[in-house]
Amino acid sequence: MDPALINFKVLYVLTQLVGLTMIVLVGTWIGQHFGGLGGTSNPKLEFNWHPLFMTIGFIYLYGNSILIYRGFRTTRKKTLKLTHAGIHLAAFVLTVIALKTVFDSHNLASPPIPNMYSLHSWLGLSAVIIFSLQYVAGFVAFLAPGLRENYRIAMMPLHIYFGLFGFGLAIASALMGLTEKAIFAITNPPYSTLPPAGLLANVIGVLYVVFGALVVYLATEPSYKRKPIPEDTALLTSSSANE
Amino acid sequence: MDPALINFKVLYVLTQLVGLTMIVLVGTWIGQHFGGLGGTSNPKLEFNWHPLFMTIGFIYLYGNSILIYRGFRTTRKKTLKLTHAGIHLAAFVLTVIALKTVFDSHNLASPPIPNMYSLHSWLGLSAVIIFSLQYVAGFVAFLAPGLRENYRIAMMPLHIYFGLFGFGLAIASALMGLTEKAIFAITNPPYSTLPPAGLLANVIGVLYVVFGALVVYLATEPSYKRKPIPEDTALLTSSSANE
Repeated sequence: MDPALINFKVLYVLTQLVGLTMIVLVGTWIGQHFGGLGGTSNPKLEFNWHPLFMTIGFIYLYGNSILIYRGFRTTRKKTLKLTHAGIHLAAFVLTVIALKTVFDSHNLASPPIPNMYSLHSWLGLSAVIIFSLQYVAGFVAFLAPGLRENYRIAMMPLHIYFGLFGFGLAIASALMGLTEKAIFAITNPPYSTLPPAGLLANVIGVLYVVFGALVVYLATEPSYKRKPIPEDTALLTSSSANE
Repeated sequence: MDPALINFKVLYVLTQLVGLTMIVLVGTWIGQHFGGLGGTSNPKLEFNWHPLFMTIGFIYLYGNSILIYRGFRTTRKKTLKLTHAGIHLAAFVLTVIALKTVFDSHNLASPPIPNMYSLHSWLGLSAVIIFSLQYVAGFVAFLAPGLRENYRIAMMPLHIYFGLFGFGLAIASALMGLTEKAIFAITNPPYSTLPPAGLLANVIGVLYVVFGALVVYLATEPSYKRKPIPEDTALLTSSSANE
């Protein structure tokens, strides 16, 4: 096997381990230190869906959807495109629920907590909007039929750039969100004494960064790029062969 | 002129405008809302050097040093390397002063404020360490004589990856730092009511992101890559020609 692909596989497995650990630790954090999950009757517990679903959807699934082409390089391109769109859709649904729960947890609190004032909220919502526009643009350009091949080729670098930019912005927003939650909610003893809840917040933040760094590396290193397989052009080839 | 280079020039000028605006606004923020700059006799004012020098050194100069090869593409490679190392050195000096002032502002406060507990401090210091290791590795690999050409070629992708990673981590750390400062220091009226100091913090954060996104785009878009100029190989050529 190509030695570059062995490196890829090792780092890909590591990425999954880091990503799954990150999700488990966010679950532990909200479960052990902030009372676990709850519905609209308890705004504080409803809030806890926000970091959990953002971590699963807007970080772990978003990253994995980016990596799908390189991680499953022997699968047909058409199948990979549909999987990419499918995982991104799942990520989007979880992200919307995560937004709904944070707005609820603010609006239903007494007194209500203001919405959309923090840099976290500005940049986090920007990341969601970039993700959504990318989804529509990507669907029109690469899944829907009709667009001329030269337009598709011209759009691909922008699709990749804004996909990775949105992913990086999601991670930066998550780091700000952790910082906010740690300052507001870890008060007795305070975050500044680094109690277990604070230490865990920091470890989760470090894992976000490591996961993000691995995803971006695996998605951009040229030697890991998927090469077209015979099945990708099978129809064209067979029709040409029959002529 | 190559149309790609016209795009590059427009975005490069935009990057400088965003970067300079970002620095001016950080100066305005600490000057108008937090009392301006001060020495060790006033820890609160000494702190204000931290965001200012980090913004100038660890964001603006760091980003510009990354862009030096593409921004001054007609300059000799050797001169560009020395300039790259020189700007990075200036960035490093400002960053160290910025670290010194934040530790001072914690240690000299009464009561003292704990150091190195926050995710901002963990990731910010990690970014500084990555930057420093990169500097040493880059110096040995690309400036000091003696390393074989094939090692230099092998190290270049890692140098680029970790350079951009450290830069991204610096920006993420700055966003967390803004969040912390806004929550701790904008209290009357509080950050959650988005008073002028809070609005300005958010605008600065948005500019950090835009500056970072532009630098990474300009540094990675393949059509903007600097091509070797005749002077880069002039000595080799003339000595070969004389043989």
